[in-house]
Amino acid sequence: MIAEIIAIGSEMLTPYRQDTNSLFLTERLNSLGISVAFKTVVGDHLEHLIGVVHTAASRADISVLMGGLGPTQDDLTREAVAEALGVELRRDHALVTEMYKRFAERRIPMPENNAQQADVLAGAVVLPNTRGTAPGQWLETAFEGKPRIMALLPGPPHELQAMWDGECMPRLRERVPAAAIATRIVKVAMMGESAVDQRTAPIYRKHPNVETTVLAGQGQVEFHLRATAASKGEAQAEVDRLAGELEDELDDAVFSSAGESLEEIVNYYLQMRNAKVAVAESCTGGLIAERITSVAGSSRSFLGGAVVYSNELKTLFADIPPLMLEEHGAVSREVALALAENIREICRADIGVGVTGISGPGGGSEEKPVGLVFVAVSDGNRHDVVQRRFFGDRERVRRWASQQALDMVRRMLM
Amino acid sequence: MIAEIIAIGSEMLTPYRQDTNSLFLTERLNSLGISVAFKTVVGDHLEHLIGVVHTAASRADISVLMGGLGPTQDDLTREAVAEALGVELRRDHALVTEMYKRFAERRIPMPENNAQQADVLAGAVVLPNTRGTAPGQWLETAFEGKPRIMALLPGPPHELQAMWDGECMPRLRERVPAAAIATRIVKVAMMGESAVDQRTAPIYRKHPNVETTVLAGQGQVEFHLRATAASKGEAQAEVDRLAGELEDELDDAVFSSAGESLEEIVNYYLQMRNAKVAVAESCTGGLIAERITSVAGSSRSFLGGAVVYSNELKTLFADIPPLMLEEHGAVSREVALALAENIREICRADIGVGVTGISGPGGGSEEKPVGLVFVAVSDGNRHDVVQRRFFGDRERVRRWASQQALDMVRRMLM
Repeated sequence: MIAEIIAIGSEMLTPYRQDTNSLFLTERLNSLGISVAFKTVVGDHLEHLIGVVHTAASRADISVLMGGLGPTQDDLTREAVAEALGVELRRDHALVTEMYKRFAERRIPMPENNAQQADVLAGAVVLPNTRGTAPGQWLETAFEGKPRIMALLPGPPHELQAMWDGECMPRLRERVPAAAIATRIVKVAMMGESAVDQRTAPIYRKHPNVETTVLAGQGQVEFHLRATAASKGEAQAEVDRLAGELEDELDDAVFSSAGESLEEIVNYYLQMRNAKVAVAESCTGGLIAERITSVAGSSRSFLGGAVVYSNELKTLFADIPPLMLEEHGAVSREVALALAENIREICRADIGVGVTGISGPGGGSEEKPVGLVFVAVSDGNRHDVVQRRFFGDRERVRRWASQQALDMVRRMLM
Repeated sequence: MIAEIIAIGSEMLTPYRQDTNSLFLTERLNSLGISVAFKTVVGDHLEHLIGVVHTAASRADISVLMGGLGPTQDDLTREAVAEALGVELRRDHALVTEMYKRFAERRIPMPENNAQQADVLAGAVVLPNTRGTAPGQWLETAFEGKPRIMALLPGPPHELQAMWDGECMPRLRERVPAAAIATRIVKVAMMGESAVDQRTAPIYRKHPNVETTVLAGQGQVEFHLRATAASKGEAQAEVDRLAGELEDELDDAVFSSAGESLEEIVNYYLQMRNAKVAVAESCTGGLIAERITSVAGSSRSFLGGAVVYSNELKTLFADIPPLMLEEHGAVSREVALALAENIREICRADIGVGVTGISGPGGGSEEKPVGLVFVAVSDGNRHDVVQRRFFGDRERVRRWASQQALDMVRRMLM
């Protein structure tokens, strides 16, 4: 079975925006043993869209259409599919009523044009949108004598993902033969891509049955492993064996072998140890706190902290002596450590984190260049301070610095 | 004239890799007044590739094919174009000789299969590759009676970009009428997409010469305007006129009419008024501070603040009386306002921001559901507190709340 993924929206034909949903969908389709053979992007242009749907129906078993289901005149997906496949479009009055109710709950009058979201292809199942207003549609039909599945999904990623996992995956699973595929993700923190690859390439090359993809992000290298075998158990054993060998080689640089993010792992360790953390951030400006609190349930382990961007606030909130700032400068090993130790004590946390550095593009000097960052963690007994020089733009330096801090908290909890 | 961009390569049909060349090409094509109407990704699969080229030739004036020009068995682009258009493929012996010479210079024997890189479509011009070995091809032909341009380019970005700018742009410039294009971006905060569209559609539809794309993000709607006219000045006047009418209609909900982000605008206003801001964040967990400090130079206006996730820290850092927390609850209008006023005073800032809410997925109740957020700003004389209910997951609620806070700071500074 092959699939085509179609992203609909003129904004994705500009130099500014790109479809990213297709990566998510490809992962999910592959997990069922379905290959993606084509990806298409088309604008909000009825004639073009009809042509694209027609082409997709003629060459792919499954077509996933994303976007163009909203209430505006630019939202043409329903109409285009109807036209391309010769299927009737009918207004579902129960759906219209539901929409009115939803708007009433929020005490907003429903704009008239919203009703077109209730136009349903004859024979299609309406897919409820738990995170937005535009419902999706699932159509099983025939085209030129061949069975075809058409999934119409909303464009916003959080809406699409929920609808795909909740509504489309179960339906597809019933329709495709169960494939014996196993996948595994191993993630490594704070090591360079080439260093990781040099150490691991001899290992994963000895496992030709496991498809290994190495992805490098900011302060993170990920191995995506994937095996197909006669049985699920066999496939699983293959990826598990390779994952084990990678972990043996990279040891405690591996922070996750089931796909979790570094912030999830940190939250998990904190809860396991029943430990509370507090942060004092200068150059990261709240990014570390933001990453920790992005995880649901983080209030159990994260107390809070201070964003001490100005020197005055370093003194006010984290008790940094003005003399220390004068002597060593705000960007120094001493200040980083004092931030970590003081914020821990002030907030009565178990672990304190302190970060100070120069994110750029301005503010650097020969002695203290842009990208210089000091990160400290302390648990009252032990502490660790690291001096790093990160390269790249402001966003990159801040991201690396936050990664360094989270990784040090993880290591302190191990 | 419309173009189709075709990325060729099975690796771009995995969950891990994406075509990025098309953003570069789109920018270049647009600058000549050529719209990109379709983007397609297809694997190294001859039958699929022939179909894709055939479809492109039938719907686009210009097709740009990227990749599949190398020496391996997977490199099928030349063959597919020949097959799809019914054009002969001829081995260019001068090219083969050149390749042999190139390999001889490096004292490496040339692998036999390399010679396929010298297969040239009848009528095509060979495009030299200054940064790699695979030459490109430029074919002007007719398909179903219509004039068609086919550009075959190598996949690696640095090779493609050099070949496009050096070989393709000059050829295209001769073939398309000189276009005068102007663009403009207008951004709106904290209004729903359909509400914005209902008020503005009657306006932008009166400007059919301006191509208007409406993009909706979290708490943000953007209008991307683009006009083509006889002269640059005329095109500019067209987009400016529409931008002005949109601003008149949406009034102070418009925060940017030159593409800036909300955090950039807030930083800009703060600097203009020489005002300092401090934040006390509960549910946003540092996101507001992170967004403000993501802008270079924000240290001039951003002092810092506190991430007061726990009740204890609300008292410790923002002086919230425990009695107030008990009486009204941490998520309340009273606490939001006190956070804003106290953090302003404590940090000696001009403007204070306070946010408290329930990001979810847990922690909601009937009285105080997930998504309920109170946002307050205060400048000592005036204050504003807003109660909002945001829908969606944790990330979305937090993003909307941060957008609300930044927008309220902007409004206070206006």
